[in-house]
Amino acid sequence: MSKVLITTVPFGDIDRYPLDLLEKKNISYTINPLGKKLTENELFDMVGDSEVIIAGTEAITEKIMSVAPNLRMISRVGIGLDSVDLISAKKRNIAVSYTPDAPAPAVVDLTMGLMYSLSRNIHQSNIELHQGKWHRFFGKRLVDCTIGLIGVGRVGSQVLENLKVLGCKSILYYDKKVTLKTDSSGQVKPSSREEIFKNSDIISLHVPLDFETNNMITINEFKLMKKSAYIVNTARGGVINENDLYFALTNNLIAGAAIDTFETEPYNGKLIELNNCLITSHMGSMSYDCRTKMEIEATEEAVRFLTNNFQKCAVPQEEYDMRNLSF
Amino acid sequence: MSKVLITTVPFGDIDRYPLDLLEKKNISYTINPLGKKLTENELFDMVGDSEVIIAGTEAITEKIMSVAPNLRMISRVGIGLDSVDLISAKKRNIAVSYTPDAPAPAVVDLTMGLMYSLSRNIHQSNIELHQGKWHRFFGKRLVDCTIGLIGVGRVGSQVLENLKVLGCKSILYYDKKVTLKTDSSGQVKPSSREEIFKNSDIISLHVPLDFETNNMITINEFKLMKKSAYIVNTARGGVINENDLYFALTNNLIAGAAIDTFETEPYNGKLIELNNCLITSHMGSMSYDCRTKMEIEATEEAVRFLTNNFQKCAVPQEEYDMRNLSF
Repeated sequence: MSKVLITTVPFGDIDRYPLDLLEKKNISYTINPLGKKLTENELFDMVGDSEVIIAGTEAITEKIMSVAPNLRMISRVGIGLDSVDLISAKKRNIAVSYTPDAPAPAVVDLTMGLMYSLSRNIHQSNIELHQGKWHRFFGKRLVDCTIGLIGVGRVGSQVLENLKVLGCKSILYYDKKVTLKTDSSGQVKPSSREEIFKNSDIISLHVPLDFETNNMITINEFKLMKKSAYIVNTARGGVINENDLYFALTNNLIAGAAIDTFETEPYNGKLIELNNCLITSHMGSMSYDCRTKMEIEATEEAVRFLTNNFQKCAVPQEEYDMRNLSF
Repeated sequence: MSKVLITTVPFGDIDRYPLDLLEKKNISYTINPLGKKLTENELFDMVGDSEVIIAGTEAITEKIMSVAPNLRMISRVGIGLDSVDLISAKKRNIAVSYTPDAPAPAVVDLTMGLMYSLSRNIHQSNIELHQGKWHRFFGKRLVDCTIGLIGVGRVGSQVLENLKVLGCKSILYYDKKVTLKTDSSGQVKPSSREEIFKNSDIISLHVPLDFETNNMITINEFKLMKKSAYIVNTARGGVINENDLYFALTNNLIAGAAIDTFETEPYNGKLIELNNCLITSHMGSMSYDCRTKMEIEATEEAVRFLTNNFQKCAVPQEEYDMRNLSF
């Protein structure tokens, strides 16, 4: 009987279908009993003789693989691959799959919400009023903001589209690979990262975490930004240097931030001290529909692999190639 | 020299133009020194020999007018007239003007932000994570929500339009006066209030406060709603019965609320105890552009009246007619 370890939680809560599927196929499974993102040591103790990990964003390192002799596949519930040591997996002949499309609509939705909240200080008024303090914050309407998008892949491009149909007058974007069709409305303009940092009212990051984007936003970039600027990160912790963000927020280099992803999760760092930092618990993909789709797709992939040795959503070769460069 | 009392605060902070205008015309003015919305007694003590009040949402009652022998005009910074005793003003030959169009875009913007926040639990995650508690909330993407709009005037119609272009699949609306053009996309449907209460994931109120809308949402309406429903009020306190809302939120009749306007402001009531109630400090109109426009329009109207005895933005007759019915 095949053994699957499901590390990502919650799992099967909204829709039991992925669990039913495993049971129907006589695949035994264990759901991470700690109910939180695992540390390397916790996963080290837990992985045992699993053949497949249906994985969240916990680190799956050479050390983990070295104590998992039966591990044949990692099926990521989500798109990010920064957590998986792809090179070690390849060497050990461990297949890796992911669900690149499923989370995007939910991340777009959360990003829109965070931008609205920042631009009108909704989060800050809410916290203060819950403490009994009535202060009428001024804000800028979202359509009047210059929005800078770094990355216009699956998520960034749809955020851009939403902003465009809402009538946002000035949308700047940078993507090292993608150039969008020229926009006849004049709303959208390709820009350098530096132009984006200098001119945006709200900067939103939509890049994977890799050796190029790690620490992309440091004190140097914050210094380029307007003092009234906001930054949004629904991509990955590590893209923004958290210590530098704390410094920027406490020294008025920028006005505020909305951060959904952190270097270490669950997050309990010092950004929680700051009312001008809107913080959420890595909920980008957590819409009912997208999360369900991710769980189903990752489980179906695991079942395909275990029953027919077939991967429909294998991680593409370029992801491996990038890892041969330094991180 | 004419004397103007400016009760609404902040005033002239973003753009000094309205103050410059008064000074240029040799009109003396006082800005409410208490820096907050005035109670009836505070305004009673303050109104003195003012000829014009450039007014916020504080109550301007018969009692106030009775101690303001020189008062000739009330120029409201905003659209709501629930605060002004129009019948007494008419009897005393006090002109009343307002700025009905200026605040709408800012209120629309805030409403969108509140809806996004509710549907993905942004506010709740932010409060909990600031308290060190990591919980990944599930939510529904805004476009998947059935949205019920009560009132599709200046604000509601634009909220509807935004939701439509974002791809929201099901938008219900009720308006006692307005029927929109039939929507060929199938996204928008005129509905009864009862249908809206029963079927909506998010209900948003865009009605003035008057004798018909006062206490429109009570325990009876909450009981009709889905247990997973959210309600948004960026219109006026009083439209939702606050005690009943507190009961509904603490007894799981509905999932949450976002409230920007209160029966008494500054608000310090018991909704501040509840994390599932997103509360903001009557910030609907507080975008830089709209607030500035409102202040300028109301001041220009006061100047027109004082210098040429002319009103460009007089309150229409139907507002007076409605007051002859019971409130």
